[in-house]
Amino acid sequence: MAILNDNRLFPAEERTREIARSLYNQIKSLPIISPHGHTDPAWYAENINFEDPAALFIIPDHYLVRMLCSQGYTHASLGVKPLDNTPYEKDPRKIWDIFAKNYHLFLGTPTRLWIDYVLSEIFEIEEELDEGSAESIYNIIDSKLKTKEFRIRNLYKRFGIEVISTTDEPNSALTHHKKIRDEWDGRVIPCFRPDSIIDPLHESFINEVDKLCRNNTTYTNYLDAIQERRLFFKEMGAVSTDHGCLEPYTAELSNKQMQGLFDKAMKGQINHGEAREFQGHMLMEMARMSIEDGLVMQIHPGVYRNHSSFVFKRFGRDKGVDIPVETEYVKALRPLLERYGHEKDLKIILFTLDDTRYTRELAPLAGYYPVLRLGPAWWFNDSPEGMMRFRESVTETAGFYNTVGFNDDTRAFLSIPARHDMARRVDASYLARLVAEHRLSMKQAERVAIDLAYNLPKESYNL
Amino acid sequence: MAILNDNRLFPAEERTREIARSLYNQIKSLPIISPHGHTDPAWYAENINFEDPAALFIIPDHYLVRMLCSQGYTHASLGVKPLDNTPYEKDPRKIWDIFAKNYHLFLGTPTRLWIDYVLSEIFEIEEELDEGSAESIYNIIDSKLKTKEFRIRNLYKRFGIEVISTTDEPNSALTHHKKIRDEWDGRVIPCFRPDSIIDPLHESFINEVDKLCRNNTTYTNYLDAIQERRLFFKEMGAVSTDHGCLEPYTAELSNKQMQGLFDKAMKGQINHGEAREFQGHMLMEMARMSIEDGLVMQIHPGVYRNHSSFVFKRFGRDKGVDIPVETEYVKALRPLLERYGHEKDLKIILFTLDDTRYTRELAPLAGYYPVLRLGPAWWFNDSPEGMMRFRESVTETAGFYNTVGFNDDTRAFLSIPARHDMARRVDASYLARLVAEHRLSMKQAERVAIDLAYNLPKESYNL
Amino acid sequence: MAILNDNRLFPAEERTREIARSLYNQIKSLPIISPHGHTDPAWYAENINFEDPAALFIIPDHYLVRMLCSQGYTHASLGVKPLDNTPYEKDPRKIWDIFAKNYHLFLGTPTRLWIDYVLSEIFEIEEELDEGSAESIYNIIDSKLKTKEFRIRNLYKRFGIEVISTTDEPNSALTHHKKIRDEWDGRVIPCFRPDSIIDPLHESFINEVDKLCRNNTTYTNYLDAIQERRLFFKEMGAVSTDHGCLEPYTAELSNKQMQGLFDKAMKGQINHGEAREFQGHMLMEMARMSIEDGLVMQIHPGVYRNHSSFVFKRFGRDKGVDIPVETEYVKALRPLLERYGHEKDLKIILFTLDDTRYTRELAPLAGYYPVLRLGPAWWFNDSPEGMMRFRESVTETAGFYNTVGFNDDTRAFLSIPARHDMARRVDASYLARLVAEHRLSMKQAERVAIDLAYNLPKESYNL
Repeated sequence: MAILNDNRLFPAEERTREIARSLYNQIKSLPIISPHGHTDPAWYAENINFEDPAALFIIPDHYLVRMLCSQGYTHASLGVKPLDNTPYEKDPRKIWDIFAKNYHLFLGTPTRLWIDYVLSEIFEIEEELDEGSAESIYNIIDSKLKTKEFRIRNLYKRFGIEVISTTDEPNSALTHHKKIRDEWDGRVIPCFRPDSIIDPLHESFINEVDKLCRNNTTYTNYLDAIQERRLFFKEMGAVSTDHGCLEPYTAELSNKQMQGLFDKAMKGQINHGEAREFQGHMLMEMARMSIEDGLVMQIHPGVYRNHSSFVFKRFGRDKGVDIPVETEYVKALRPLLERYGHEKDLKIILFTLDDTRYTRELAPLAGYYPVLRLGPAWWFNDSPEGMMRFRESVTETAGFYNTVGFNDDTRAFLSIPARHDMARRVDASYLARLVAEHRLSMKQAERVAIDLAYNLPKESYNL
Repeated sequence: MAILNDNRLFPAEERTREIARSLYNQIKSLPIISPHGHTDPAWYAENINFEDPAALFIIPDHYLVRMLCSQGYTHASLGVKPLDNTPYEKDPRKIWDIFAKNYHLFLGTPTRLWIDYVLSEIFEIEEELDEGSAESIYNIIDSKLKTKEFRIRNLYKRFGIEVISTTDEPNSALTHHKKIRDEWDGRVIPCFRPDSIIDPLHESFINEVDKLCRNNTTYTNYLDAIQERRLFFKEMGAVSTDHGCLEPYTAELSNKQMQGLFDKAMKGQINHGEAREFQGHMLMEMARMSIEDGLVMQIHPGVYRNHSSFVFKRFGRDKGVDIPVETEYVKALRPLLERYGHEKDLKIILFTLDDTRYTRELAPLAGYYPVLRLGPAWWFNDSPEGMMRFRESVTETAGFYNTVGFNDDTRAFLSIPARHDMARRVDASYLARLVAEHRLSMKQAERVAIDLAYNLPKESYNL
Repeated sequence: MAILNDNRLFPAEERTREIARSLYNQIKSLPIISPHGHTDPAWYAENINFEDPAALFIIPDHYLVRMLCSQGYTHASLGVKPLDNTPYEKDPRKIWDIFAKNYHLFLGTPTRLWIDYVLSEIFEIEEELDEGSAESIYNIIDSKLKTKEFRIRNLYKRFGIEVISTTDEPNSALTHHKKIRDEWDGRVIPCFRPDSIIDPLHESFINEVDKLCRNNTTYTNYLDAIQERRLFFKEMGAVSTDHGCLEPYTAELSNKQMQGLFDKAMKGQINHGEAREFQGHMLMEMARMSIEDGLVMQIHPGVYRNHSSFVFKRFGRDKGVDIPVETEYVKALRPLLERYGHEKDLKIILFTLDDTRYTRELAPLAGYYPVLRLGPAWWFNDSPEGMMRFRESVTETAGFYNTVGFNDDTRAFLSIPARHDMARRVDASYLARLVAEHRLSMKQAERVAIDLAYNLPKESYNL
């Protein structure tokens, strides 16, 4: 039996399944638009081959690492390199074996579906991964990874990617992007992610702002320097900015207040409340600059980062211990919307990990304010049930056209086609139910399916 | 192809669909009980014909206006009259064209299903509305609207309405209701909605209380005057009061405290915290008066009204920029329930826009306190998914008999049969699933279906 | 028609139903592991016959009492004995008649499904309960209850129970458990539930701590005494502790601070904020002790107990007026997880009544921290929709293996097989959908089904 069934993720009910398959068939081969993600631009610049299976699948993937940790494995035993030079597992085969032996932990998770897709569709492996097949599958992957076909630029073409965005530090020189543009016809664009220079409590704030301001660290110069950086990103192909913050809090402060907070922040003397105000005002500044330079503004709030200080200190950021928290939007965004909510030249894409906000806050907000669009189900919600909940919760109030299609949001390059395929199957299944229940006609559903898979991401991100 | 399929909104699965259809067939022709809504009593008093299609469908409907605004249209361009005499679109055909051209925005929304119903069932139009058909459909509607068959009293009979409640200002003389009673056998009853005299921060509070108290503005006289007004409403047929508040906060203050707050409020000197206490106590007074006069008390909390001050100042209230917020019930209602929760002669119907409260707060509260009943899925949740979520969330804890059937809650008269039809189809579908899963017998489901569609609203509102 | 259909609770769709039935068939006869419940150990020690139908089904069951109260019946009329010697109904037939006459109130609730199961499967009654059949059904139950077959030890065997945990006061001498062990081969184990000695605002705190400390009430001795009690419980077979608290708040205080708070508490002078800190620290102490003695720690937070002070004063605790409230986990548990989150020898099982936390907080926490597992859908959520929501919400992030199977959590002994049967049917139905949608293979689903029904509860509770 092949691992992947052609009807996977479609509803079981025959009438609806037929409709879903028919809708899916019309969108499955559309080019991939990937307007938000975390692949490394160096990969494309150097046209790399990925390393061994452990380095490819496990060590950098916080979804996998966290699940294995939840059953008692340590980061170090999974090959995650400690910052403090304590020992860690270096043998990729040993790491792979842990993963294979525990692959049942991922039953029912999207991670398993993505990996099964990659093994089956990309590596053409027919066997199921488990303890018994671990070694032979390792060997197949390992040898294919070394081939020319598996150099990233070839994979980019094979996957049918039309454009992919990376996420980049605000002070980045974007040299990889430059090299890519000079050498290659693939479209890899940067995204301006200024968290480290906007959140005064970010551990690199002072350093990065110093770098940004080139030793002229006044608030005015700081704003000017940000604006310059945005324009540089735009010249290098960027179409968007991205803002990760604990809450989508916005506030309007006076210039004088901001100067005072800025000076405190640069001395490392700002407290939590002040930092919140500073960042709240800077989100407004980002909106203002977006109106000027046309970069689409993305807001990704609501994550308690580095919930375990032990893991943060020993292994650093993004190691699987980021936990979502309640995230209020209606009051938090009001100052921003009061000021800029009706602007013609502004687009703000809102994300959430707090799926209790879909019906109550996000759909009503996006269903009125012209500047707002809803990003797709994100991170822990980027899953069949999560994506379905998103559609079932927001469509009735915001429709389809205040959403922006799919984001794969991944650093796992090989999973990109798997993720887009899943999203297309789930959207097809949702639409199929509406058709089967005579809430949409087939013609309407076809139009929407194509818009969700291709036109909306393109248009929403000005691509 | 006709726009409406007979099986619309029923589950696709054949077994369940058959059951749903059978249940629906037994309730589809039951009279409409409409115990909560916002149609204008003047319409019935004058037996009006509605104006042109734009004035009928678009301009007064905040569901439509908000969605069109979300894609960049302004209120003024949609014919909403500014308060400040700035220009606005007056040509109904131009407004209609915008709507028709953008009708795809409503795909997947209940608004589209309601309008399709109205076009198809009420105007007998077979064509789908879009840019191409806009003009011819406009003409059909426009000419039918002028006919005798489309005078509202004839439509009332045609729709099978048994009773309909309007919502009325506390100082209203109810002259239209008087005229209706004198002239006609349709049952149009008022509902006492005292927000403007109970919320000290309401922009008309001082004026309305002055009017209410006829210049004898003491707190004692204020309470007496409210009681009198309630009795007047009751004489005019009212069976209920309705309370829109930001939170369902209740509090018990002393007479002296209330007098102090009342005096402050009448001088325009009350602050937010004080206003909250005042209103919290007044909700308790409303409950006390309900025990005396038997009016059913409805609480509709949880809306951040006029979220955009620009729209509020330029166009006024109810223009599509009301956004739900988190709404706590367990602690907020405790003072009220401590005092009156076990009263035999009191019924309180709770609504919410915060559907995260169904399982956790509202079903457990209504599943114990004898005075409480749950109103149906409201406003943004008055949709197929929203209504289904309501049943799936509350039934297991509160059963069916602590709910009150359906409210159409609309000012769009023509949509009333469409809304009741949708609710009946969704309830039939929910019950059909329970039958198909052998959680209810067919006989039990039939009883419940009829109770939800007809008996429960009648009994819950003492009709 | 028999009351119970063999396919009850399975999805209607034929393909999925077949899969569900096949999965269910493999687990339906597995022994019952009941690691958390509230049956009375005296019953097993004395090998009792249950009293009359009213005393068995209605009076002690807060699910039933609350629903009947919601429609206007009083506790006293339902046979609940007032603490103040005011009159109450003593005729079990009258109480039974109220219940039978109102049995339609339970349509669509799990309570009705449980009771139908008990009537049909345990008492072999074929008739539906209603006003007409009330008397004859009463008589059948009443006479069967008196038979040898209905003595509890025989029922225990008949139900296929392998082990059942009671819940016990911290100062209990566990004499019933001792007698059970000495006399009988059934496995009835205690669970250490120290709320009354850990929550300084518990009405028995001072008394119980005095008893615990045997008049040596210093904080140090208090801690030692708790540790001793835990060891005693463990010797008597306990595998777990259980903690009911308003919030899962944890905090680390100094020894000196705790001594101060303890002294205040013992004088009845502790305030709410201090009590919260005290209890927050004691939860940490409980975790520390669990690492030492190996007892699994259960946390059951989020209930506003005794919401009606009238009912509490007149009838006492657990009378159906406990209402869930919002319950935050990410910040509340952080001190505990910072300190003990990566311990090898600790297992903490988290429960919630706040189902809005599943996707956002609980699944992400349990999907990372090795000490955490998620308890099943609890109390108001222990229902077909509630259990399904649990699986649909947590599986994609936490998988199956960070959950612990089913808890019946009941004091209604006869409902135990009904509840496990419901849980097995719902899990089979959930898994069947995943199989039908090709998200799991049949083989994988079978493994998971057996683990959920039998292996996970056994392993999670160290049984």
